[in-house]
Amino acid sequence: MNRKFLVVPVMAILACSGTGSADQLSSWTDGAAKSAIIDFVDRVTDPAHTDYRPVDERVAVFDNDGTLWAEQPMYFQLVYALDRVRALAPEYPEWADTDPFRAVIADDREAIATFGMPELMAIIGATHSGMTIPDFRATSRAWLDSARHPRFDRLYRELTYQPMVELLHYLRDNDFQVWIVSGGGIEFLRSIAEEAYGVPPEQVIGSSAQAEYRDDDGRPRIMKLPQLGSINDKEGKPVNINLHIGRKPILAFGNSDGDFAMLEYTTTGDGARLGLLLHHDDPEREWAYDRDSHIGRLDRGLSEAAVRGWVVVSMARDFGVVFQAE
Amino acid sequence: MNRKFLVVPVMAILACSGTGSADQLSSWTDGAAKSAIIDFVDRVTDPAHTDYRPVDERVAVFDNDGTLWAEQPMYFQLVYALDRVRALAPEYPEWADTDPFRAVIADDREAIATFGMPELMAIIGATHSGMTIPDFRATSRAWLDSARHPRFDRLYRELTYQPMVELLHYLRDNDFQVWIVSGGGIEFLRSIAEEAYGVPPEQVIGSSAQAEYRDDDGRPRIMKLPQLGSINDKEGKPVNINLHIGRKPILAFGNSDGDFAMLEYTTTGDGARLGLLLHHDDPEREWAYDRDSHIGRLDRGLSEAAVRGWVVVSMARDFGVVFQAE
Repeated sequence: MNRKFLVVPVMAILACSGTGSADQLSSWTDGAAKSAIIDFVDRVTDPAHTDYRPVDERVAVFDNDGTLWAEQPMYFQLVYALDRVRALAPEYPEWADTDPFRAVIADDREAIATFGMPELMAIIGATHSGMTIPDFRATSRAWLDSARHPRFDRLYRELTYQPMVELLHYLRDNDFQVWIVSGGGIEFLRSIAEEAYGVPPEQVIGSSAQAEYRDDDGRPRIMKLPQLGSINDKEGKPVNINLHIGRKPILAFGNSDGDFAMLEYTTTGDGARLGLLLHHDDPEREWAYDRDSHIGRLDRGLSEAAVRGWVVVSMARDFGVVFQAE
Repeated sequence: MNRKFLVVPVMAILACSGTGSADQLSSWTDGAAKSAIIDFVDRVTDPAHTDYRPVDERVAVFDNDGTLWAEQPMYFQLVYALDRVRALAPEYPEWADTDPFRAVIADDREAIATFGMPELMAIIGATHSGMTIPDFRATSRAWLDSARHPRFDRLYRELTYQPMVELLHYLRDNDFQVWIVSGGGIEFLRSIAEEAYGVPPEQVIGSSAQAEYRDDDGRPRIMKLPQLGSINDKEGKPVNINLHIGRKPILAFGNSDGDFAMLEYTTTGDGARLGLLLHHDDPEREWAYDRDSHIGRLDRGLSEAAVRGWVVVSMARDFGVVFQAE
């Protein structure tokens, strides 16, 4: 028997199907959370196990803000929107006297802190519409390639959680489809998701504005409109999961009560299922917040996780590393 | 050099990536349409060709009614809806006196023939809502597994076009993502798309109703509502292609002016692109209709195809076989 003859097909097979190994999770500390993940993946990928799932059922969904990257002191996309108001202000002189734009331009932090949904919608509408999809993505991406986080003095886009990025790769290498299901804007996320997470645009679900197809001048294009399309938060998450994926996931990972319905939907039903919540309990390396936070509030999820069998991942204990190396 | 050593990795590579061969298109006659398809696929999959496209850009979109399966004398889903009205009538005695339901129950074909959008919406709303997604799919599927087409006395689901099914396989084997982008209902299609076409639920785009997540009784579920969500026709097609796929396709195949915007969007822009229209010109084996048809009207597309470089596929000449063998 020729030894090389044996080695080559084995390597080729590895290149085709499940090559995921727990060694890929090197930024996770050894503990209950890492074990629960590895155990689940081992079971659903082992054809001899009663929990085995064929490849097409291996659908995993991840929230983004606070789950895959940081969300403090403000959602990154909101920082982007405020920066866009300032960048666009010279084109809209009337904004200087019109709230909420006035407050943003004047950096009136007291007023900004009181913004509710109407103010935010006005700002998103004004900064996220009136351009084509590729133009919007290019503008988002240019901001993500240059804007720096005040606390860490690093690019916002670098504040992805290294253990989570490893988990996405590990799942994909075990033939999972990995989807992002974010309350943030679908096109904002698509501008960075492939590079940051290896998630292609067709596997990004997010909040969306209405859009319009125009071909009036020989340049067919899709324009973003100011009107709201879908808010992909809370009960909107399972609804949009069905619209886009059309299958029930078997793994869901979130960090806030905005993800409660997604975890509940994912973890009820037949067969092995896994729900996970990232608990922000690491004020030194990141932040500590849960039940009383205005951003990423985690109250009901924390109270019901044990009964529902959801794994609470402690950033302080389970993340050996938080962010990617500088 | 060991000869086996050379053969094995080549076979292994073929198992991983593009194995599509023109031999798969055996139900197409040799002619301009088949040549245009093969030539396009050869160019975009040849790394040495200037038209080469990496795998992630190989996105192909297909209309369903009249493109992948027949649509005469009535859209199959509409036949389903009318059958559902009759099946549900005993539960709704008031329908016997209430149009449009009365006309359907009484089989008043004259009245049915006058139905416009309001009547159809009332019928779709009444028959396509008030159940969970899995229940709706099961009901659709049971109908597709039993209802027979009046002209051919075959199951409606068997009236897929054999050359088109071959084309979907050929494209997938050349590492294309194949999406269905139908004016029909997304959940109706998902009940059959994987089996009929090999298209998984996450690659089906269609018209949709609004939906609601409910967890009031410990059985979390998504309910279909009667309110319209999105009409996936005409300009709605490129908008929903962007929402679901987030990339511009490079190949689009339709059969009516409802597909015009999808073809226009797909075939404008950089690089090699292919638009195709199936022309129903075969009254013996199928039907002949185009500019004056109420169903699947093809007028502007037929007029502009030559100038736009779209391939008009003649069912009479280019399809060696129309439907799968009985």
